[in-house]
Amino acid sequence: MLAVLTGIPGTGKTTSAKKALELLKNERIVYELITYGDVMFDIARSMNAVKDRDAMRKLDPAKQKEIQKEAAKKIAIMAGTKKVLLDTHCTISTPRGYLPGLPQDVLSELKPNAFILVESKPEEIAARRQTDATRQRDAELTEEIKTHQELNRAIAMSYAVFTGGTVKIIQNPQGKMEEAAKNMADALR
Amino acid sequence: MLAVLTGIPGTGKTTSAKKALELLKNERIVYELITYGDVMFDIARSMNAVKDRDAMRKLDPAKQKEIQKEAAKKIAIMAGTKKVLLDTHCTISTPRGYLPGLPQDVLSELKPNAFILVESKPEEIAARRQTDATRQRDAELTEEIKTHQELNRAIAMSYAVFTGGTVKIIQNPQGKMEEAAKNMADALR
Amino acid sequence: MLAVLTGIPGTGKTTSAKKALELLKNERIVYELITYGDVMFDIARSMNAVKDRDAMRKLDPAKQKEIQKEAAKKIAIMAGTKKVLLDTHCTISTPRGYLPGLPQDVLSELKPNAFILVESKPEEIAARRQTDATRQRDAELTEEIKTHQELNRAIAMSYAVFTGGTVKIIQNPQGKMEEAAKNMADALR
Repeated sequence: MLAVLTGIPGTGKTTSAKKALELLKNERIVYELITYGDVMFDIARSMNAVKDRDAMRKLDPAKQKEIQKEAAKKIAIMAGTKKVLLDTHCTISTPRGYLPGLPQDVLSELKPNAFILVESKPEEIAARRQTDATRQRDAELTEEIKTHQELNRAIAMSYAVFTGGTVKIIQNPQGKMEEAAKNMADALR
Repeated sequence: MLAVLTGIPGTGKTTSAKKALELLKNERIVYELITYGDVMFDIARSMNAVKDRDAMRKLDPAKQKEIQKEAAKKIAIMAGTKKVLLDTHCTISTPRGYLPGLPQDVLSELKPNAFILVESKPEEIAARRQTDATRQRDAELTEEIKTHQELNRAIAMSYAVFTGGTVKIIQNPQGKMEEAAKNMADALR
Repeated sequence: MLAVLTGIPGTGKTTSAKKALELLKNERIVYELITYGDVMFDIARSMNAVKDRDAMRKLDPAKQKEIQKEAAKKIAIMAGTKKVLLDTHCTISTPRGYLPGLPQDVLSELKPNAFILVESKPEEIAARRQTDATRQRDAELTEEIKTHQELNRAIAMSYAVFTGGTVKIIQNPQGKMEEAAKNMADALR
């Protein structure tokens, strides 16, 4: 069983996922939370392609793609014998545009059963990000976040067509993380 | 010729489709209206997998997928010799999330030429559904319906990439079914 | 390198793209701007299938599809040796519905690296189109344009899953074409 966990930075996806997995553990339903980037880093290091995490984004794109696909194979094997919640991204916002996190060739290795999209209100995400000293104007950033979340919903529907997997949208508003975690646990039970 | 008819419960998709097919019949353009679920039920019964319709949703998912694909093959054969309007869903809202109605392997059997999305205003759909004694709060239900329709649009665009088929959105507002039926007939002519 | 340039009529996509390519030329980054429809017309003419451009849309759909795929092969070969910006459409609005500009079999030939979506405010696009004596009511046209741009975003995300390419959305508001061109150049650099 492989569920994919996504959400743009500032949605609180990882924290709410950890709470959801604790709730499930109480019912003896055990998921392993795996971060896609960690699996990629381990592979890159074992290939002597990088020494530290910073070097990952400097790898040439062809090498990155190769490692991304290797990681998908490794994760799919893990998901064959246990329940895996895979922390990754629907899309990554780059200067060249939105990059799909799970393109066709990666999806065909992973074969996820479910996609979880953690969302928050764009204004709340913007406020959380501003505390890390972003200098972008508020309205513009909020608009960008809104667009990013909408595009992630659209791409998730395409992921669903490729895999037959379900798409669950979890709202994680300020101060309601318990409820978000409960909803996520319901989708993963 | 195979056109896929979709619309969430409460949009009036089946009623407006029947009217559209009557309009076309007057011009000697004959479509057969087939319900995906009926074809699946017939197959399941002939396999002795179920005795009644209620048993369908209790089938294990692997069996359901097998029947869904068999049904796609059967429908594609029908659509080879006549015009078929296939009543089904873009996505089905389940407790685990939105389930794609036409995942990749089903689409590759069906090869639809066109997708028709019947929509209504979320408030109108909510009002129609409330009469069946739903207890959910109005605003929340309206928001859910809005999201469901948006996700159905997104997934329909992915269906179009897979098949090359057209996507037609038909608005079916309260009291305007004649116009909706006329628009649908135009898309099917 | 193949970047796909899209935008509905009235967004100013071609004009802003020409400006973007000039900016890049100053840095000795040379893109060739190719129009998909032109490549298709050349192929159709060389097959003696048509004599003039008007005849293109009267071709039977099977022939059109064949020519569309041949054009994709030709463009992919060009993009193997130089940087190509391919002017085309995410979807084409037809009486039968929205037709995907780049269905699966075309995408698998083209293998684009990037998708550029040029957008404008629906009201501005409607105003620009009205000058060509459209008779449709303003509010209805604006709504249609809004829907068309939203569906193009959704389908672009599906194109991204198929190809692994990036999706860049460029806003081209009235009087800000220099900025739009600069943003496009950034995505193509």
